[in-house]
Amino acid sequence: MAALPPNEQTRVDMERARANTSFDVSGVRDLLHGSYGFGWEAHAKLLTVVSREAVVNKAGRPFMSREERYKTGQAVIDRFNELRVEHGWSDEQLESALLLTGEILPSTLHATAFLPVILRQGSDEQVRHWGMLARARAIIGCYAQTELGHGTDVAALETTATFDKTRDEFVLHSPTLTSTKWWIGGLGRTATHAVVQAQLVLEGKRMGPHLFIVQLRSLEDHKTLPGRTIGDIGPKAFNAHPATDHGFLRFDHVRIPRAHMLSKFAQVTRDATYVAPPHAKLSYGGMLYIRAQMNLGGALTLAKAITISVRYCTVRRQGRIGPDGLAPAVVSYPSTYHRLLPVLAKAYVFNIVSRDLLKQYDAMSVRLAEGDASLLPETHVALAGMKVLVSADVLAGIDTARRAMGGHGFSEFAGVGALLAMHTPAVTYEGDNYVLDKQVVRAALKAHQLVTSSGATPPRGSFFSFLATQRPVSLNLGDTHDLAKLLQWRAAHVIAGVVRTLHPNAPFENDPGAEARVSRAVTEAFIAARVADVLARTDLPGGQSVRRLLHLYLLTTVETALADLATVVDPVALRAKVGETCKALLPDAIGLTDAFGFTDWELDSVLGVHDGGVYDALWERARKSGFNDVGKEEQATYKGHISAVLRRGSALAAKL
Amino acid sequence: MAALPPNEQTRVDMERARANTSFDVSGVRDLLHGSYGFGWEAHAKLLTVVSREAVVNKAGRPFMSREERYKTGQAVIDRFNELRVEHGWSDEQLESALLLTGEILPSTLHATAFLPVILRQGSDEQVRHWGMLARARAIIGCYAQTELGHGTDVAALETTATFDKTRDEFVLHSPTLTSTKWWIGGLGRTATHAVVQAQLVLEGKRMGPHLFIVQLRSLEDHKTLPGRTIGDIGPKAFNAHPATDHGFLRFDHVRIPRAHMLSKFAQVTRDATYVAPPHAKLSYGGMLYIRAQMNLGGALTLAKAITISVRYCTVRRQGRIGPDGLAPAVVSYPSTYHRLLPVLAKAYVFNIVSRDLLKQYDAMSVRLAEGDASLLPETHVALAGMKVLVSADVLAGIDTARRAMGGHGFSEFAGVGALLAMHTPAVTYEGDNYVLDKQVVRAALKAHQLVTSSGATPPRGSFFSFLATQRPVSLNLGDTHDLAKLLQWRAAHVIAGVVRTLHPNAPFENDPGAEARVSRAVTEAFIAARVADVLARTDLPGGQSVRRLLHLYLLTTVETALADLATVVDPVALRAKVGETCKALLPDAIGLTDAFGFTDWELDSVLGVHDGGVYDALWERARKSGFNDVGKEEQATYKGHISAVLRRGSALAAKL
Repeated sequence: MAALPPNEQTRVDMERARANTSFDVSGVRDLLHGSYGFGWEAHAKLLTVVSREAVVNKAGRPFMSREERYKTGQAVIDRFNELRVEHGWSDEQLESALLLTGEILPSTLHATAFLPVILRQGSDEQVRHWGMLARARAIIGCYAQTELGHGTDVAALETTATFDKTRDEFVLHSPTLTSTKWWIGGLGRTATHAVVQAQLVLEGKRMGPHLFIVQLRSLEDHKTLPGRTIGDIGPKAFNAHPATDHGFLRFDHVRIPRAHMLSKFAQVTRDATYVAPPHAKLSYGGMLYIRAQMNLGGALTLAKAITISVRYCTVRRQGRIGPDGLAPAVVSYPSTYHRLLPVLAKAYVFNIVSRDLLKQYDAMSVRLAEGDASLLPETHVALAGMKVLVSADVLAGIDTARRAMGGHGFSEFAGVGALLAMHTPAVTYEGDNYVLDKQVVRAALKAHQLVTSSGATPPRGSFFSFLATQRPVSLNLGDTHDLAKLLQWRAAHVIAGVVRTLHPNAPFENDPGAEARVSRAVTEAFIAARVADVLARTDLPGGQSVRRLLHLYLLTTVETALADLATVVDPVALRAKVGETCKALLPDAIGLTDAFGFTDWELDSVLGVHDGGVYDALWERARKSGFNDVGKEEQATYKGHISAVLRRGSALAAKL
Repeated sequence: MAALPPNEQTRVDMERARANTSFDVSGVRDLLHGSYGFGWEAHAKLLTVVSREAVVNKAGRPFMSREERYKTGQAVIDRFNELRVEHGWSDEQLESALLLTGEILPSTLHATAFLPVILRQGSDEQVRHWGMLARARAIIGCYAQTELGHGTDVAALETTATFDKTRDEFVLHSPTLTSTKWWIGGLGRTATHAVVQAQLVLEGKRMGPHLFIVQLRSLEDHKTLPGRTIGDIGPKAFNAHPATDHGFLRFDHVRIPRAHMLSKFAQVTRDATYVAPPHAKLSYGGMLYIRAQMNLGGALTLAKAITISVRYCTVRRQGRIGPDGLAPAVVSYPSTYHRLLPVLAKAYVFNIVSRDLLKQYDAMSVRLAEGDASLLPETHVALAGMKVLVSADVLAGIDTARRAMGGHGFSEFAGVGALLAMHTPAVTYEGDNYVLDKQVVRAALKAHQLVTSSGATPPRGSFFSFLATQRPVSLNLGDTHDLAKLLQWRAAHVIAGVVRTLHPNAPFENDPGAEARVSRAVTEAFIAARVADVLARTDLPGGQSVRRLLHLYLLTTVETALADLATVVDPVALRAKVGETCKALLPDAIGLTDAFGFTDWELDSVLGVHDGGVYDALWERARKSGFNDVGKEEQATYKGHISAVLRRGSALAAKL
């Protein structure tokens, strides 16, 4: 028999697991926080400030109505704007602080879409005027692109901005029901202004989508201005994003000054002449900003989920009692660690590669601001491929983490459900994944065509450099360089295979899943090359464990690609190597998750508590559940309905 | 340019798609409803009655608090129990009517666990007494098995039922925090009685888990009886199952008469003698009932999701304008139909195979009641494998359906999110999928061992008959019989491969994903054999279309198994066949979903409306959203917080 009651044993288990850690956790924490962003110290300082704010009230969320979640969110924004002044926070610090609450707020789109679009697409004067007001939050903005009938395809947008030369104004109008702006975060009840994507109509001619700043609500009393019909589009699936007022917006001939068209690139002159941008793609760069941010956001969400699951599975015991009088820890079963450790590896890889890609995006932005779009195509395809792969794998990984926790993973108090709900739309917004696949494939086929027809080798380090990879002559599964090369060759091999099946009129009819397969293979080649670069660093912290974890990422990626690699990889040897690597990593699982640096306040999970006391935590929260201690409500339901059922049942039973 | 506004065009599109149907929908509807259960006509009649009941209030659900969902659920139960008397419904009709509301109610576990356990495990007298009271709803029951610290493994349960010979009573007790009963549906605020799984302790000796009927609340005033601590465990992830009060329960030395131990099989006599059941597994049969029901429930949930998604993707248009002045329907893209049609195929296959398996379960139950457990092992392994596969694939399929709808699929009004939330726990409850995998694998390895060591051929038609399948010498991808044989050989091949890697002390360490892979291969072989049987029927309704759909199921199952079939299947030819089959099916997609027979009331989805008017439906529901028309609330948030942010911002802007 166990010496301790099971609820106390969990703390001992966690302490032991933590003590097993073979490497210096702080070094790895710096790696995971350091390569882009504030770095660990500044992050930890901000977190301390934020987590002292009672207004955030994480524990209360599961019991709030949507109205309460929205109001609490507004109170948080208000308080954090106050803190910003108090602490002299930068724009980035304010947004990071708001992100740390774990709630998607109506202000999120102000910071990630409204403001950046003005800064990137506005003329110098517009940046000075509107950019300053937006940065100060003297106005609150939203970004109105998507329409009821049109999503990712901006060319199809129906909203019009017709130039009225006589009055030097644009007239914004929604000609149809389907042109209603829809899904606009922060619009429903909050924003005072919008950047609106609309078809510019000049002298009767449609000039394609352009951006316009439109005031929506009065700055005096917040009332909706004439000609705008605004509302909230209703709740989201899984009760997700309840604090955000995704809205709809219809224009009935709303007039704005000509100066409200964002005109860093394209312009309309007083005499209705269209001044085209110097490069057709210049205005596209700004839209990539959210995608670049999304990858890191996804990586961090996955890190939370896997931390919770690894911790719980370390202290949860189940199965045949061993010589120590205890059932084995759930994490010690091959069928469990084989699920969790590859997800942990992804949380690391996505974190590192996303930060790299943010640096690449910044470098491109600098060039773009100088009118140089040369880095755009590479960055665009990398971000499209990564957005698809990271958003999908993060969603799948969170779900794997949830399922590994068995029944308790379905409790809202486990915290993983909320992470999954929050991340769910990432696969369909900011470019639907299956639409972005098409863009990656188009670029891949073009690059393939160039290489095969001209024999040109793609430049080393470029996105499509893998196209030059030769079929591996030998494969050492223990050699991460070999594995990265293998994944690069596989991408070239998949593209070549798809090219052979292309139908002249309907390209993918002979292989309808080809686009998703090519997009994934290409992006996995890109990631594998980055991972190999990281592994080449001699100063990589975390010793053998971090190296093993990245190695595991490559091995399990190869495992999912076995159907493409039948002639090159022996599945039995590969699976044995995966098993061996997992087993070697297992003693460091807690250390590797600790290295993310999440506090209990951040995770807000009874199953992911740092000290392992999961049963006490679950019991405490259930006892305080807002659905208990409601004596009056309970009696009302009994008297109203339950007693009626029982009375009817008694009468019926007497007759049976 | 299109002649019609986009919102009206959708209705024309739907009408045309429906008119394209090549087969008689009513025949297929009968197939999908007929082989087990009431059949279509009786179902439709019940549905008409139920959907007239305003108390159900589907449209109101997204705006209700949990308290309101619970209360509304109780009101529905009350009203439906009244209707039962009015219409003379059978037990099955009452439960079907409640299921048709689409809400998981506190009464669900009464009907699917409490009552069946009494009927199957009670002595004749217990069935007469308790069974009658439960059937009439003169008592309301729950089924208390899972504990805070113990899930699928009943042997580890800590709750004790100690026989006190002196008073001829059992004493129920929860010795630890982790022995608290947890996740018990209907317990938190509703049930008057429970069937409790507890360790029988007889003269100081633990006799393993047995079942006991315990009263929880007074039938006079519904107050909790002494010695019981009861409460609700809190909300579930994704706001799922909000109308059900999953509860916790602790016993402090609660005494019940000896007659309250369910004693059809095992018994305790007045002098504390244990009378063992004639067959150790006899009591196990009852637990399989929920699994058998779950498969059909999952199939129907998937059918709803795919109906909604196929309908929406048929009328949603996107992309380059064609010669008809319209963008193509989203469903016409290979990357879309290649995702949706295989899910539709699964909704058919799971429906048909689940109904077959319910018949098999019933046949086994009849034998079991006669003390004959000979059919149990086969049925057990089939239900375990199917539970794992169907629950996981339904969840994945609903998600595929949701994602294919792009952004709007994330609206709660789309209805698919609620289906996914409702189905989510199916992969971890009633036997966690990864624990059930182990049971399937154990049986598979045993059968393999028998066949290889003795050379015995498993009986034709038995679950493991595929073990005798020879490696196919030729493969015609157009021949469904060939494909079924291929999947059967693949299962035998996967098992043989895993057997070679087994580690003597830690069986799956060399291949930690082996259990999940074997379980899936084995169950897919089982399903493929059933599908081949169905295709052998000459009277199969639905003409070529239903045949093609089942064919597609086999093809895409082979596609997911390519890593196991590298030496046998040419991936290029297979994918081309998948593409060809999808394309041929596409014109019948609407007809094939119509054949499920769902009404708009049942689907409760703005994107799945029968007439295709999706934009009008979305607009109407958004306008009526409970988060709009809240002038007072809106002004309060503005005055409380938004204005403060703006004022602070103005002051800040003045300084910038």
